[in-house]
Amino acid sequence: MKKYAEMTKEELRAELEQVRAQYEELKARGLSLNMARGKPGKEQLDMNGPMMDLLNSESDYFCDGIDVRNYGNLEGLPSCRALFAELLDVKPENVFVGGSASLQLMYDTIAKAYTHGRVMGPCPWAKLDRVKFLCPAPGYDRHFGISESFGMEMIPVPMTAEGPDMDVVESLALDPEVKGMWCVPKYSNPDGIIYSAETIRRIASLRHAAPDFLLMWDNAYCVHEFEGDYVPFPDILKECAKYGNEDMVFEFASTSKITFPGAGISVFACSERNMAYMKKLLNAQIISYDKVNQLRHVRYFRDKEHVLALMKRHAQILGPKFKCVLDALDKEIAPLGIASWQRPKGGYFVSVNTMPGIAKATWKLCKEAGLTMTGAGATYPYKNDPLDSNMRVAPSLPPIEQLEQAMEIYCASMKLAALEKLLAE
Amino acid sequence: MKKYAEMTKEELRAELEQVRAQYEELKARGLSLNMARGKPGKEQLDMNGPMMDLLNSESDYFCDGIDVRNYGNLEGLPSCRALFAELLDVKPENVFVGGSASLQLMYDTIAKAYTHGRVMGPCPWAKLDRVKFLCPAPGYDRHFGISESFGMEMIPVPMTAEGPDMDVVESLALDPEVKGMWCVPKYSNPDGIIYSAETIRRIASLRHAAPDFLLMWDNAYCVHEFEGDYVPFPDILKECAKYGNEDMVFEFASTSKITFPGAGISVFACSERNMAYMKKLLNAQIISYDKVNQLRHVRYFRDKEHVLALMKRHAQILGPKFKCVLDALDKEIAPLGIASWQRPKGGYFVSVNTMPGIAKATWKLCKEAGLTMTGAGATYPYKNDPLDSNMRVAPSLPPIEQLEQAMEIYCASMKLAALEKLLAE
Repeated sequence: MKKYAEMTKEELRAELEQVRAQYEELKARGLSLNMARGKPGKEQLDMNGPMMDLLNSESDYFCDGIDVRNYGNLEGLPSCRALFAELLDVKPENVFVGGSASLQLMYDTIAKAYTHGRVMGPCPWAKLDRVKFLCPAPGYDRHFGISESFGMEMIPVPMTAEGPDMDVVESLALDPEVKGMWCVPKYSNPDGIIYSAETIRRIASLRHAAPDFLLMWDNAYCVHEFEGDYVPFPDILKECAKYGNEDMVFEFASTSKITFPGAGISVFACSERNMAYMKKLLNAQIISYDKVNQLRHVRYFRDKEHVLALMKRHAQILGPKFKCVLDALDKEIAPLGIASWQRPKGGYFVSVNTMPGIAKATWKLCKEAGLTMTGAGATYPYKNDPLDSNMRVAPSLPPIEQLEQAMEIYCASMKLAALEKLLAE
Repeated sequence: MKKYAEMTKEELRAELEQVRAQYEELKARGLSLNMARGKPGKEQLDMNGPMMDLLNSESDYFCDGIDVRNYGNLEGLPSCRALFAELLDVKPENVFVGGSASLQLMYDTIAKAYTHGRVMGPCPWAKLDRVKFLCPAPGYDRHFGISESFGMEMIPVPMTAEGPDMDVVESLALDPEVKGMWCVPKYSNPDGIIYSAETIRRIASLRHAAPDFLLMWDNAYCVHEFEGDYVPFPDILKECAKYGNEDMVFEFASTSKITFPGAGISVFACSERNMAYMKKLLNAQIISYDKVNQLRHVRYFRDKEHVLALMKRHAQILGPKFKCVLDALDKEIAPLGIASWQRPKGGYFVSVNTMPGIAKATWKLCKEAGLTMTGAGATYPYKNDPLDSNMRVAPSLPPIEQLEQAMEIYCASMKLAALEKLLAE
């Protein structure tokens, strides 16, 4: 097969005819498929059934000398803090266990910066005319959604194979209006890359003009390998502390993709000074989070070793799904030269970069044929992908047989969009 | 027994000697008792064991066509919204089901007023020099804690036997800097009184100078009778709507005192316009709350009738505890004329008003004898009880035998404080 860029108009027209016929045939099937969000599939959820059968008798609700059903322990059940301390390689006193969503802890961290300011001052961000935030892109749309909700000026930073382009970050951080940065350091959303040691060092040692610069370190996929063994990852708290930046960072994690997306538990980890400050502020907001669910997770997870064993079982389900996506792309798209993509070994996404100018059109064609994809552009601040190129593929939800159909539609749609674009030029 | 006020100095001194001996004897027992917070006792928590055994097989997690374990349904599980709609006498579409704490929903409602403003504008409260809030007092310390955290100017409003003094409220609401009011309308915290129909009518029809006046209607004890039958209570949403004030009010409720304080579910109810606005803002904060726990409650509660039956069982546990407190006060304190108190039929507290100037001293004496009470003054904004008189007694947590001991200490402490005060005058 020739690359599309090397085809003559005539060849392109012939190809268009064939691809359109294939697309129409797929569309005629009247399917309803979804690769839009990083939702675990039913098989993954069913795996965790045993977790729901661990609290039976009245004595089961006692842990660390605490009746987990009652009020108390704002910062979380001690055993649960210890468990996440082991997972994240931090100290238990650096861990705060929240409710079912790490997104809410992230939102609250930003919200409190707005209403109360950060622990080091100088003032609540709500008092400022402008707050700028660094947004490595492509990135996670819900991070950008929080920034947008608060009216931040989001500044895109290019992603490289090693993480955010640090030359750009270091230069932008010298602007005192730049108040922080979003990061998904391991299996980044959507690229699935792991920040390199050098990138992490440069982030941890970042010189920032804003004294209250806030590093939002969303370690969402900290144990989420679906291919190969667990990849150890440096603790960002200790890294930042090496350079006197210990109060700069909040790290986040959750069990949304280990147990239940809608009913797991979430944590943040931070310096002792940040912890004392956040506890004071959170104490006005909530008496305590759901410790029954925290205990359920403690009993189910036991320790890091057991969590990693559990993740191997997730990998058995997710691995073939990612292979299905990559195989289809390799077979259908690679020879045509109309897109490139990452080959992640963990996380929840495949990040596809089409030839410029066809991501939106591809999305629309998918939609019309019954396949919902993450919105084209969603991976960029303000949903504005300047090249109209990046698309996030989320293969976790559909069963394999649906995924195969979805990839047929996706590849046909991308080809069609590419041909129409090339023929219109 | 003579009233202390009618005793001669000599009689007071004789009484002091006797009371002090009694107090020292109690103190020497080295007890550790707690009547500080409205925490349900273990017996109440154990009652709800069956709730934890309702989700067993994989098919149990499906409700309303939704897999409750996965992401989705920000506003809550439809069946759960319907259940609370029945309990609060509102429409399901007016109900938003949150996480384990209604306090968090209240905090978020206020926080969003600060960062984003209310749906009717005119601007985020963070942009204002001053925000005043009406605080019927005595009231709930955690309400005042939220206001204080945001730096509001809290204005105490006297409580009457029918609710907040509405002459005062109506006059203060004409100040455009007054942005809202806290209310616990049924079994108010701590007085345990039910707002009268006339008070509710005057609140619902309130003329407020601030266009974004926010009525925080914390219906925490909506089904929480411990004596007598369920008392129907008007729906504040419809009441407000009668006077064009439908967007003024947010109502809150939770199962913290029905199932588990630390692991229940919470709701707010509001107008359609508020709901659309809050959903938009909350969508940036969280994908969805814990629907597994919502479903657990739906299956356990079934309907209002069943919830009321459950509350009768709570009443069987709580009723004797309140009787123990009132009996001790009637026997030990009433004849001395050094305090008066409410006789609630629901809620979680007995509100005691001592003679002026001895609440703090009584609290300290209790503490020294091993009994932790709610901080004296805690029921007033800024913990400032101008008469140093109000004390909140929370009898729910200790078993009866401990409660009897606690009341011995409490009464002896109050007597001692009264005698020392009278003899110092």
